[in-house]
Amino acid sequence: MRTILLIGAGKSTSYLLKYLLEKAASEQLHIVVGDINIENAKNLLKDKPNCTAIKLDIFKEEERKNAIKKADLVISMLPARFHIEVAKDCLLYEKNMVTASYVSKEMEALDEEVKAKGLIFLNEIGVDPGIDHMSAMKVIDKIRGKGGKMILFESFTGGLVAPESDTNLWNYKFTWNPRNVVVAGQGGTAMFIQEGNYKYIPYHKLFRRTEFFEIEGYGKFEGYANRDSLKYRSAYGLNDILTLYRGTIRRVGFSKAWNMFVQLGMTDDTFVLEDSENMSYREFVNSFLPYSPTDAVELKLRHYLKIDQDDIMWEKLQELDLFDASKKIGIENATPAQALQKILEDHWLLNDDDKDMIVMYHKFGYTLNGKKHQIDSSMVALGKDKTYTAMSKTVGLPLGIAALKILNKEITATGVVIPISKDIYEPVLSALENYGITFIEKEVPYMGYNPNNVAG
Amino acid sequence: MRTILLIGAGKSTSYLLKYLLEKAASEQLHIVVGDINIENAKNLLKDKPNCTAIKLDIFKEEERKNAIKKADLVISMLPARFHIEVAKDCLLYEKNMVTASYVSKEMEALDEEVKAKGLIFLNEIGVDPGIDHMSAMKVIDKIRGKGGKMILFESFTGGLVAPESDTNLWNYKFTWNPRNVVVAGQGGTAMFIQEGNYKYIPYHKLFRRTEFFEIEGYGKFEGYANRDSLKYRSAYGLNDILTLYRGTIRRVGFSKAWNMFVQLGMTDDTFVLEDSENMSYREFVNSFLPYSPTDAVELKLRHYLKIDQDDIMWEKLQELDLFDASKKIGIENATPAQALQKILEDHWLLNDDDKDMIVMYHKFGYTLNGKKHQIDSSMVALGKDKTYTAMSKTVGLPLGIAALKILNKEITATGVVIPISKDIYEPVLSALENYGITFIEKEVPYMGYNPNNVAG
Repeated sequence: MRTILLIGAGKSTSYLLKYLLEKAASEQLHIVVGDINIENAKNLLKDKPNCTAIKLDIFKEEERKNAIKKADLVISMLPARFHIEVAKDCLLYEKNMVTASYVSKEMEALDEEVKAKGLIFLNEIGVDPGIDHMSAMKVIDKIRGKGGKMILFESFTGGLVAPESDTNLWNYKFTWNPRNVVVAGQGGTAMFIQEGNYKYIPYHKLFRRTEFFEIEGYGKFEGYANRDSLKYRSAYGLNDILTLYRGTIRRVGFSKAWNMFVQLGMTDDTFVLEDSENMSYREFVNSFLPYSPTDAVELKLRHYLKIDQDDIMWEKLQELDLFDASKKIGIENATPAQALQKILEDHWLLNDDDKDMIVMYHKFGYTLNGKKHQIDSSMVALGKDKTYTAMSKTVGLPLGIAALKILNKEITATGVVIPISKDIYEPVLSALENYGITFIEKEVPYMGYNPNNVAG
Repeated sequence: MRTILLIGAGKSTSYLLKYLLEKAASEQLHIVVGDINIENAKNLLKDKPNCTAIKLDIFKEEERKNAIKKADLVISMLPARFHIEVAKDCLLYEKNMVTASYVSKEMEALDEEVKAKGLIFLNEIGVDPGIDHMSAMKVIDKIRGKGGKMILFESFTGGLVAPESDTNLWNYKFTWNPRNVVVAGQGGTAMFIQEGNYKYIPYHKLFRRTEFFEIEGYGKFEGYANRDSLKYRSAYGLNDILTLYRGTIRRVGFSKAWNMFVQLGMTDDTFVLEDSENMSYREFVNSFLPYSPTDAVELKLRHYLKIDQDDIMWEKLQELDLFDASKKIGIENATPAQALQKILEDHWLLNDDDKDMIVMYHKFGYTLNGKKHQIDSSMVALGKDKTYTAMSKTVGLPLGIAALKILNKEITATGVVIPISKDIYEPVLSALENYGITFIEKEVPYMGYNPNNVAG
């Protein structure tokens, strides 16, 4: 019997737990789910066999150490900043560990010790980061294997609403933490490189500098630049690549409309609105517009943002009841971002039968024998319902699969790692295919930014 | 003989020192100028009588304590964050202190002790803050004296170039720290109140929400909102005022043109440009524009910022050699703001015979006997040359005058104070008039935002 300790029983663990419990009998697993609120853990497990719910406050040293000591492997679904407490005890008791989060500096610093003890702390093995790393490295390694040289890599991921549940003008609903969606793109200028030119996009222009692409069977999408496109240059071995761009996927038209909120200042999370609790949606809008003794909020906004009378942008705002004088923000000391989130949640929360969708798209440009080539690779995953979402599936399955393969010694790497080496991505991607998470790869004519090498 | 210790011998002390040395004989003063670089202090004093230059590193405790112990009063011209070291020793040795800086929390915390010892630490007695406080409170007290109730207060100050030296399309040159000009408006949303409505302007809209006004004999000016308009509500006793707006003055058209830099992202000071040292001005511009294999930087910029062919905005950019491919930034690890500062300094530094200009404009709205009234008050100060600038005059004179009046016990207030009470502003403003720093006050018809009380 092997014990897997799963810490954090949030919404996003539904699929991971389903996977582990399905495997429990054949793989001789016992699953312990620990959460600061034991009811969360119990609700998730109900009366299923091969599992136990425990109360686990990771800031109580004894509770934490006791639980980790008894496990064979630990999966941490905690918010990223809390992993390090768990990681230190995993090191102490010599347990392997798996997370879906970005490697923090503190985590990175454990690398040598983890290696010395023959352990693996596998991070960034969810969807983004996770499946993006694995599916990209698979193609990059293939290109290199046949002697190609990478010249372009673009990669986009987005959590969206499935076509059948796509019922509003924004073609968008919240399929994960709404707060992260509202403040997305803040905290630094987006940086990337195109045809050897470094490019910088400030936040207030981010949503007007989108790229477009199409995914067969699903139509057109747009992507806006992530902040950190250059982050994986060395990890991916792409130090001298001419174009490197990572982005977030939305349906076409979303970003241009979202930019209205950015321009007004409604996504700001750095100050508190006066008397936000009693502020109406209309007053919220008006607080970002010039004062006028005579003009209505509507006209002031149209004029300020230059929205024509027949522009669909306008309908998008109206759909959100943005000019409603009776609806209240109702949150004390709210920042504009918190107030906007409240307004959006009225309309953008998933209904019980709504399905979500994860879309991933990679574009690889390379030279081989003096010629330019391109491979496009895409993946679409659809959710089942509000609980078994595509998000929880694409985050949870790679975590569960990797955990099992570590326990079974099919993954034998050591250290603090991310899934970019063949010995990790190959078995995990192959197992994911059994669950319908498959990439469609196509050789297409090279369509990089500068196919004909025109100077400029 | 009374000793005044003046700490910090920068450019902005020229007028202050001139004033103190002129008064030295009649007022029996000895002026000690302390600077970390004794040559700075010596250069400033040359061979004048009644003064001594000393080397003074305020972070060397003994040096600092020795100098302060021997003084009767200390004027600190240090950067604001360093005042507190001086203040603590002034408290220890029971010396009065004068600065032109905003009161920090640390300084504020000394208030009770300063009072208990019967001392005064007078701050914010330069031009802005300083002359603005004094000239505004004088009018506000007068309005209250006759039973009026304040409903509106707008206050603008700007450091500009004098009309005779106004030789570029921007109608602007650097008359103080260029860095502060480049990053002005960053660090937080501008907040103010208009006719009872709180208004918030994000940085990327700040330079497109200007107010206009005219000053007799000097023509039209514009003002953009300061971040901190609400800061002095309680100090000025304006807690229930309907309109409170503080702004920075520029010549008309400056802000709209400056906004081009903001929109591009060139004023960002939070990240470092790749290979900034070897970057040409043209490459700097291009790094903020979309990549194109065919279009020139000029056309991309025109299109991105929607600049028509005949728009003067374009000439303003060209005047700065912004598209020059041979001029280099030449600064290692420069932020965009540092690179932009370099480009602007090529054109906007004062020539030896250039004169600067300080402009201040207040607008007071009040009700008296059921009627609305308005008083406009304005002041223009002109510099003599590059050394005896209007900036150093309007900063230095109030400092020097107040210091002398404290020594002579004409100012007897105690504690950590700013010059908003009559016993301080009256004697100082009256002395300033002898130096040509005078306000023109005019009763005008009420022209507030809502003169006819139209709802909206």
